[in-house]
Amino acid sequence: MAEGKEEDVKLGANKFTERQPLGTAAQTDKDYKEPPPAPLFEPGELSSWSFYRAGIAEFMATLLFLYITILTIMGVNRSTPNKCASVGIQGIAWAFGGMIFALVYCTAGISGGHINPAVTFGLFLARKLSLTRAVFYIVMQCLGAICGAGIVKGFEKGPYERSKGGVNYVQHGYTKGDGLGAEIVGTFVLVYTVFSATDAKRNARDSHVPILAPLPIGFAVFLVHLATIPITGTSINPARSLGAAIIYNRDLGWDDHWIFWVGPFIGAALAAVYHQIVIRAIPFKSRA
Amino acid sequence: MAEGKEEDVKLGANKFTERQPLGTAAQTDKDYKEPPPAPLFEPGELSSWSFYRAGIAEFMATLLFLYITILTIMGVNRSTPNKCASVGIQGIAWAFGGMIFALVYCTAGISGGHINPAVTFGLFLARKLSLTRAVFYIVMQCLGAICGAGIVKGFEKGPYERSKGGVNYVQHGYTKGDGLGAEIVGTFVLVYTVFSATDAKRNARDSHVPILAPLPIGFAVFLVHLATIPITGTSINPARSLGAAIIYNRDLGWDDHWIFWVGPFIGAALAAVYHQIVIRAIPFKSRA
Amino acid sequence: MAEGKEEDVKLGANKFTERQPLGTAAQTDKDYKEPPPAPLFEPGELSSWSFYRAGIAEFMATLLFLYITILTIMGVNRSTPNKCASVGIQGIAWAFGGMIFALVYCTAGISGGHINPAVTFGLFLARKLSLTRAVFYIVMQCLGAICGAGIVKGFEKGPYERSKGGVNYVQHGYTKGDGLGAEIVGTFVLVYTVFSATDAKRNARDSHVPILAPLPIGFAVFLVHLATIPITGTSINPARSLGAAIIYNRDLGWDDHWIFWVGPFIGAALAAVYHQIVIRAIPFKSRA
Amino acid sequence: MAEGKEEDVKLGANKFTERQPLGTAAQTDKDYKEPPPAPLFEPGELSSWSFYRAGIAEFMATLLFLYITILTIMGVNRSTPNKCASVGIQGIAWAFGGMIFALVYCTAGISGGHINPAVTFGLFLARKLSLTRAVFYIVMQCLGAICGAGIVKGFEKGPYERSKGGVNYVQHGYTKGDGLGAEIVGTFVLVYTVFSATDAKRNARDSHVPILAPLPIGFAVFLVHLATIPITGTSINPARSLGAAIIYNRDLGWDDHWIFWVGPFIGAALAAVYHQIVIRAIPFKSRA
Repeated sequence: MAEGKEEDVKLGANKFTERQPLGTAAQTDKDYKEPPPAPLFEPGELSSWSFYRAGIAEFMATLLFLYITILTIMGVNRSTPNKCASVGIQGIAWAFGGMIFALVYCTAGISGGHINPAVTFGLFLARKLSLTRAVFYIVMQCLGAICGAGIVKGFEKGPYERSKGGVNYVQHGYTKGDGLGAEIVGTFVLVYTVFSATDAKRNARDSHVPILAPLPIGFAVFLVHLATIPITGTSINPARSLGAAIIYNRDLGWDDHWIFWVGPFIGAALAAVYHQIVIRAIPFKSRA
Repeated sequence: MAEGKEEDVKLGANKFTERQPLGTAAQTDKDYKEPPPAPLFEPGELSSWSFYRAGIAEFMATLLFLYITILTIMGVNRSTPNKCASVGIQGIAWAFGGMIFALVYCTAGISGGHINPAVTFGLFLARKLSLTRAVFYIVMQCLGAICGAGIVKGFEKGPYERSKGGVNYVQHGYTKGDGLGAEIVGTFVLVYTVFSATDAKRNARDSHVPILAPLPIGFAVFLVHLATIPITGTSINPARSLGAAIIYNRDLGWDDHWIFWVGPFIGAALAAVYHQIVIRAIPFKSRA
Repeated sequence: MAEGKEEDVKLGANKFTERQPLGTAAQTDKDYKEPPPAPLFEPGELSSWSFYRAGIAEFMATLLFLYITILTIMGVNRSTPNKCASVGIQGIAWAFGGMIFALVYCTAGISGGHINPAVTFGLFLARKLSLTRAVFYIVMQCLGAICGAGIVKGFEKGPYERSKGGVNYVQHGYTKGDGLGAEIVGTFVLVYTVFSATDAKRNARDSHVPILAPLPIGFAVFLVHLATIPITGTSINPARSLGAAIIYNRDLGWDDHWIFWVGPFIGAALAAVYHQIVIRAIPFKSRA
Repeated sequence: MAEGKEEDVKLGANKFTERQPLGTAAQTDKDYKEPPPAPLFEPGELSSWSFYRAGIAEFMATLLFLYITILTIMGVNRSTPNKCASVGIQGIAWAFGGMIFALVYCTAGISGGHINPAVTFGLFLARKLSLTRAVFYIVMQCLGAICGAGIVKGFEKGPYERSKGGVNYVQHGYTKGDGLGAEIVGTFVLVYTVFSATDAKRNARDSHVPILAPLPIGFAVFLVHLATIPITGTSINPARSLGAAIIYNRDLGWDDHWIFWVGPFIGAALAAVYHQIVIRAIPFKSRA
């Protein structure tokens, strides 16, 4: 079997034609050539306007993301003790997932639509963008998140404080290990969806995929929020946690802050490994 | 860098090929020519049936928009004090966002599917339609909104009055400045999505975009409602506020009414500037 | 102007090229020929298997539609007085709209995916199907609805009775005129969406439209439910009302039953007229 | 008529051209050839890497499915007695349906995206995949479900026990027959949607279908949950019930367990029969 697998992979295609029960075109490599991995430092990238434009787009998208989501959290918390006179916890989950859907749709053609350092990190590990670009994106995402949270705080200090500024922290009844685990698996779900939905091989086969990709990605964010808001408030996005923590700036926001960097980065790395090793079998392929 | 940027822009394409981490085709200008800006007054436009048909479509769409959304607000307010026996505040957000999705889908091929003076204003600033058409659309949208609200009031006066006619006003606990800010940023989110989702350059690359565009646009409306219903009831649409205010016709509807024109128009202008200057870099391009 | 309009229409295209602010392709008639109206009686239709298969598909789809939706209503009504321990009224609206989305998607290629006598009636008025087929569809839809409601009643009589069998009636606090109006406008919204989303001219331009059409159609059903569940429980579908009334078989289900045939049929007729006269301008076109 | 039907079917196309009121292309067989049924044992399949990769993808998808959904159930049950401070029962339905949407989208190109033994069984009956592959998928799905539920239990034992581990059982007030019926019809809705949305004939006509198919499939799961959570908690997926029951491992999870295998398999078989016999008329076609 090992041999068959080797050959299967070496040919860059399935040895045996695969039946496609769900009606997807066969995953042949026809018309598709594996792009070379992005270099760590791409010469000239820093002198291209499109590079800076992409950073600005990431900044603006993350700003709007924090603005809408923290405002939604504030609105829900105003309605106490019963949340029925608000959009509810489910509404918060929609705010996070829906914004990611809309923003990825809007910025995919400009910057790739990451809006999340964990996504940038995962795609960097898969060598889909240069180190320069990855660092630039992450800095711009964090700055955008800080500005977005700052605008919300400017609106009204009272409800902002009562909502604890929308910061992420491990909720009462859960250990820090629970929180870390929730962030790891949650980010895995998100980055796994990003890889699957935007797989370049898939694009070569089904030319219409990219345009739909924002929908499952947004849904992944929505679903993880449905599941883990009771545990950590759900971050799976270090920039979102950092922006909220810096603007709120109390111990509650900083105590568990490391979890919202370590967790998402581990989850993103696992998703990158799963996709590149298991799904794409890249290490086993001979390079031309 | 300024030089590189100049050249980048002058060539009408990215100087350096851009990696597309999210699987979108490279943003080259192949097969794409910047359309000339729409003239302020287009000769002959006024004698074309399609011009009037577009106005009627805007009228009808705005009428149905107000009808469904205000009726939903009334239904939620009947269920007091607890909103649990109704579709809830989240249901109101779905009504606004969902109607925009369905109506943009239905009228995009007839009038462009604005259904909102702020959208028309933003697209006019980007010179996507003539001044004549913009004014005509805005008048028809306002008339449609008045008729839609009027039909709802005709159904039953009692619940209509108890729901305050669905008018927009700055809620208790927020200042007028808060309300204005919320409308500006909220409309920015909407018009930014409209520009991004319908970017003609994008169309040239991905021929299937337009048909999906109504989905992120509707979601943008939904999301802004999730966030700002507790602040102003969310307008981001001057026609919606005007229609509700005229039919309700009490001080509550008129006191803050200016906010729902000034805010959306500022937000739309900012989005137009952001898209044309930052994303498209139009002023820096040499014109052939 | 009348002259310009005449010519505009006679040419079968817009006299002046229309700008498309929302990025839709120009509405030219290139590659499109108005199909002839369907004959009232199509020779041979009755001996084609595809005719009967279409009827069976309508039967099955309406059966599943009633089954899921009435079961959802029962589940919500079990949770009293507070609806919080159920999917809520909003969940009922999702059940109706979501089922229409999924079922239209599944049956569009077999029968056209009407699942609603009002839709069949509207499309018949626009001469999109023969009288034979329209009558056959309506009969099959009603039979399917009766069977679907019957299966639900079989599950458990108790909750079924407490939920009043999911029948439509004008709620306390509304007059019969209110109910009729709500059904007329609601069905107009639905059938207007059906016409717009499936416009054959649109298909000729944007070959990818049909496959997305079920989404706005399902959303239209969802939105009308958000708005008018507090008024009539929302029918906009005579088969749905008939099936529920026959199986429940008490005065409550029959008292206002005429409203749920007259209202939807008037609404569908208005939508057909609006689309054919205003949007398509068919009467003003010269026929080759 | 029987004769006409025979001929209609023998020609492999509709005898009389069918009008397509909802704008779908005519169901002609042009460019389409019925694929031969999958053999029970496909030679060489076991030595292809893509076969094992498909199994791993099914394992991972089912693991993530159980993880997100059971965690969501736990979060809702923490909020008692009133569910308003949680995402609610509707949020649970979204978790199940949304995960299926996202996971089918992500794995369709790798394994076909079944994530459910009932779907695999239904597609096997229609001879869309070999027996070897069907058995392998079902085993991997069950293992994935067990691991997913196990991870959730690891997070926190307390809420897990209070939520009864998310196991399926016939709720108080319903008989075992009610539960079995609900599972049969619910699975019929799901597998009927899978067949309709991924019909190969449909693919040949509308080349863009497959990519949208996950949306109606996910919605079908969502809708069945809206309707039958009050009856059985909704399984329609034997792996989901098995994983929850094994990890919870109390009588409550095992008492009705047979229902969640027998019901889904009967429902899937009925859907396969309906689709192959009624919709595709395969037995009546002459084979070349």
